[in-house]
Amino acid sequence: MQQRMMSEKPSKFPATQPDGAPLKSITQVLLDRRATMRFKPDSAVPDEYLDAILSFGAQAPSGYNLQPWRFIVVRDEQNRRRLRRAAMNQAKVAEAPVVIIAVGVKSDLEQRADQVLREGARRGAGKFEDVEGAKRGAMTFLSFIPLNAWLNRHTMIAVTAMMLVAESYGFDTAPMEGFDPSAVKREFGIPAEEEVVALLAIGRAEKPEKAYPGRFPLEQIVFSERYGAPWQGRR
Amino acid sequence: MQQRMMSEKPSKFPATQPDGAPLKSITQVLLDRRATMRFKPDSAVPDEYLDAILSFGAQAPSGYNLQPWRFIVVRDEQNRRRLRRAAMNQAKVAEAPVVIIAVGVKSDLEQRADQVLREGARRGAGKFEDVEGAKRGAMTFLSFIPLNAWLNRHTMIAVTAMMLVAESYGFDTAPMEGFDPSAVKREFGIPAEEEVVALLAIGRAEKPEKAYPGRFPLEQIVFSERYGAPWQGRR
Repeated sequence: MQQRMMSEKPSKFPATQPDGAPLKSITQVLLDRRATMRFKPDSAVPDEYLDAILSFGAQAPSGYNLQPWRFIVVRDEQNRRRLRRAAMNQAKVAEAPVVIIAVGVKSDLEQRADQVLREGARRGAGKFEDVEGAKRGAMTFLSFIPLNAWLNRHTMIAVTAMMLVAESYGFDTAPMEGFDPSAVKREFGIPAEEEVVALLAIGRAEKPEKAYPGRFPLEQIVFSERYGAPWQGRR
Repeated sequence: MQQRMMSEKPSKFPATQPDGAPLKSITQVLLDRRATMRFKPDSAVPDEYLDAILSFGAQAPSGYNLQPWRFIVVRDEQNRRRLRRAAMNQAKVAEAPVVIIAVGVKSDLEQRADQVLREGARRGAGKFEDVEGAKRGAMTFLSFIPLNAWLNRHTMIAVTAMMLVAESYGFDTAPMEGFDPSAVKREFGIPAEEEVVALLAIGRAEKPEKAYPGRFPLEQIVFSERYGAPWQGRR
């Protein structure tokens, strides 16, 4: 029997917030969550929480299960200062105890496709005789789609899952796109051909957080059946 | 006093699953969630749940609060069949009672920037005298970034939030990228210059769902401090 290379679902993870409070529901998270502007410099994300946030983020779905993402966990103080300089000098980057650099990876997609499809077949999620065809299908699909858009699309599913899990555990977060991708690549050894998609800072917010700016009403962003057709809401 | 154009946070939404069961925690959601292959054709998403899923999705963060997304809710049976034909004829597209077409919008960003920044200032999330500068900053940022990548990056935060809220309410979901964007645009009246980012089907899965294919071990996708540096996990 061939060895399985893929991991199972997370089995050990904190059941409560660090102070023992219950996890926030996702509805509460989406009511409370703000893009934190300033983090308490003395806050911390305990290792078992960071591990859970990363493990749950890794459960995100992806086309053909290719999981085209990598995450650099930056905790070292000097590195956070280096990252801050590559990120428009935003104070929060150095203040947050953890910043995750999310990278979309396109350099080994065919090898990954082979690996995930074969293991999928071993696990009953596909058939061995279909692996080659599925791999060709995946590669054909990827050859037609702008890869930078595809990498952003996928990586943000995992980043969003991490953000919401972290908030559910009571932490505050800030997703960021204000950075110089070339500088981030240079400072953190990321190959030039990969795509820096976002930064995700995790910690404890310095309160109060800034005022809620509101959202466009659903009637302006949701359509019924056809683009531009007014959303009727509850029928 | 000028009228506020933006909506407040959701205030009325279901507190339980339709059958009265409590909401699933986000950790449970991320353990249970599968990309559903087949939906029960007779399932339904009650209006108040669909409204909640859309409203919470709309709370997603975005750069400068630009919210560059639109969502077409497709429930009509004939339209779901039309969408199926534009989506590689995948059965689930016509089976699911609701499919949301997620669109990234770039055509009115400057006007939106003006609107959100002025309203943000009215709400205390910024200053009026900074609106013009912030708008120029936003437009400059957007002129340097590939817009298709940016639209995918943002829209997927909202799509992922919707997916996880729907799952928390006990529904099953399938995020999809297997479609012909031109055909989807043509069939649903989406302007050519906008970006069809994803489809999200919501309903009830025909069980059993396919086997879990596993995920790359954290050691292969997470790095410590530097790209390629082995993740040390719990220190």
